[in-house]
Amino acid sequence: MLKFIKMNEDGFARRGALETAHGVVQTPAFMPVGTVGSVKAMMPESVRDTGAEIILGNTYHLMLRPTAERVAAFGGLHKFMNWSGPILTDSGGFQVMSLSGLRKITEEGVAFNSHISGERFMLSPERSMEIQHLLDSDITMAFDECVKYPAEKKAVQKSMERSMRWEERSKKAFVDRPGYGIFGIVQGGMFRDLREKSIKALTDIGFDGYAIGGLAVGEGQEMMFSVLDYTAPALPDDKPRYLMGVGRPSDIVGSVLRGVDMFDCVMPSRSGRTGQAFTSHGVLNMRNACHIDDHSPLDAECDCPACRNYTRGYIHHLFRAGEILGSMLLTWHNIRFYQNLMRQIRQAIEENRYQSFHDDFMNKYAHDRKM
Amino acid sequence: MLKFIKMNEDGFARRGALETAHGVVQTPAFMPVGTVGSVKAMMPESVRDTGAEIILGNTYHLMLRPTAERVAAFGGLHKFMNWSGPILTDSGGFQVMSLSGLRKITEEGVAFNSHISGERFMLSPERSMEIQHLLDSDITMAFDECVKYPAEKKAVQKSMERSMRWEERSKKAFVDRPGYGIFGIVQGGMFRDLREKSIKALTDIGFDGYAIGGLAVGEGQEMMFSVLDYTAPALPDDKPRYLMGVGRPSDIVGSVLRGVDMFDCVMPSRSGRTGQAFTSHGVLNMRNACHIDDHSPLDAECDCPACRNYTRGYIHHLFRAGEILGSMLLTWHNIRFYQNLMRQIRQAIEENRYQSFHDDFMNKYAHDRKM
Repeated sequence: MLKFIKMNEDGFARRGALETAHGVVQTPAFMPVGTVGSVKAMMPESVRDTGAEIILGNTYHLMLRPTAERVAAFGGLHKFMNWSGPILTDSGGFQVMSLSGLRKITEEGVAFNSHISGERFMLSPERSMEIQHLLDSDITMAFDECVKYPAEKKAVQKSMERSMRWEERSKKAFVDRPGYGIFGIVQGGMFRDLREKSIKALTDIGFDGYAIGGLAVGEGQEMMFSVLDYTAPALPDDKPRYLMGVGRPSDIVGSVLRGVDMFDCVMPSRSGRTGQAFTSHGVLNMRNACHIDDHSPLDAECDCPACRNYTRGYIHHLFRAGEILGSMLLTWHNIRFYQNLMRQIRQAIEENRYQSFHDDFMNKYAHDRKM
Repeated sequence: MLKFIKMNEDGFARRGALETAHGVVQTPAFMPVGTVGSVKAMMPESVRDTGAEIILGNTYHLMLRPTAERVAAFGGLHKFMNWSGPILTDSGGFQVMSLSGLRKITEEGVAFNSHISGERFMLSPERSMEIQHLLDSDITMAFDECVKYPAEKKAVQKSMERSMRWEERSKKAFVDRPGYGIFGIVQGGMFRDLREKSIKALTDIGFDGYAIGGLAVGEGQEMMFSVLDYTAPALPDDKPRYLMGVGRPSDIVGSVLRGVDMFDCVMPSRSGRTGQAFTSHGVLNMRNACHIDDHSPLDAECDCPACRNYTRGYIHHLFRAGEILGSMLLTWHNIRFYQNLMRQIRQAIEENRYQSFHDDFMNKYAHDRKM
């Protein structure tokens, strides 16, 4: 059971706080991704220093290596990876579809081969719940099926209906306890009636929070927003809403406007490792030669170590020379950029000026939609 | 001009302090290597936290990328890489021999092709001094020639004599100023009379410190120590002595016994990136499966973040999963291990018990000489 307190509303945007066994998360919140038990290229203390209050772990990766049973023996994922704050884990469903080989989907679940060892595994709603329990995840995600985009309505409907059956089994298998909760996941693709049926099914089961799945799969921002326009407001008002795998800064700003509370994405960390920096003036590719003699900081408005202590020229040099420190500094900066954005979002909602914050941001970042 | 204060002697071992423009270095000292303007996988703040007071930069790498002129425009290497402490730079001679292509050595210097761009460069005593000046190096190394080991005495002698001529030109080209100094480099291979001739030539020129070059090139620890036995005591008593590119912990402990004050080596950082950890109980390969279920810290006697906050099992997991954090944690630990060793060495000399410290260490680490 998780406690969610809604502190303010500004249009559809919501300012809240989610209480978990490992601490409180101020929402809207962005969760950095720590796939295999590490937010890549970051010390967990540094992740905390960026302002992140909750991180995401991946069930699929951790069940394969080091295994959930092993993480449990180490005292759970928090202790294992030295992150004392809340952790949300996905169900493994999405990665089974995108990473594993030789999948066989039945009503029972998904049998698949590990992309690491080739070994055969089975993931079902019950096993996913067991794994997430072993990891000691504060927020467990229900096990759902992910359908490719684009897909025929019939296929989307069939998949959504199976997801609803799997999510009901997930809820049954979840071991409820104070400070721990389970989120259901709305499916139904880009079809309003299917989304509504999915919401009905999930709210009948009853979850601690509701995630919106099957978006940011290539449909484009405009269509994603149009699905959110009818999906988010149809979700229970008193529970947190989580848009999975999203996204670019403008995706987040636009989704909060439509009533979303939580986000996760590899974008800030993955971009950081490849030399892309999110700044208050847009996205920079630090590998570009134009930075070589630039003595200015990455982002003069940012207070992270990368911006306080180094020049663009130095960071460019690190990427050209293949130095790990380049990944370390840009990952830190990008996650700090995202957390600063979330802080500004929360403040704007508190001050009932979210629409104008949104409009300003969208204008300023209009040239950035290329990412 | 550099000021070196010898505070205590214990046998041949010396406890001193070297004052530079960017701060004081307590000796015996170990310098982590920051080849291209970064101690790999470390924030400079963390390097400082390990107890390191001085780092080494590589002239050869920096002259090629980003170029010495560019580093100078950024305010020197200290500012460029955010390391406010002293920096020693090598002369580029050693790396020209080991890394570049199509070398042509003349009395003037070495013409070579960059291993990065293939572009043709020239390195001479005068150019090496100019580069190290541009980098704002606190301790400049004279430009010498490095000869392969093993080599005929005749070849070693010829090379040593050329080195002495080059080092004289280096001294002439060096721009002296308070807090900055230049070290000469003793050559002469494994031949006592050549080493003695080299020392005579260098002391006639007069340097702020004396390095011993041409060791740790494959001759083995026993032969290295036997060369040090006659080389170190023949050097001026009132100047710091630096053994270049050394080494394993036992190399350092044994060399201090013979009168060496300064060391540098990529070993702690390079080993860290490949999963090797120096501990008070010997060297561990963290990739080995034996660590997978080990809940104990890397080294219970160490106070670094890797040892305080993580288990051997987690660090093993990071290396198995190819996570950058593994390199970050082990590099930090290994450099901390080296700095802790130097602190113990300094304390033992202060307390006039260095011989017994040395003997205890050599017994304890006898099984470690395999590295």
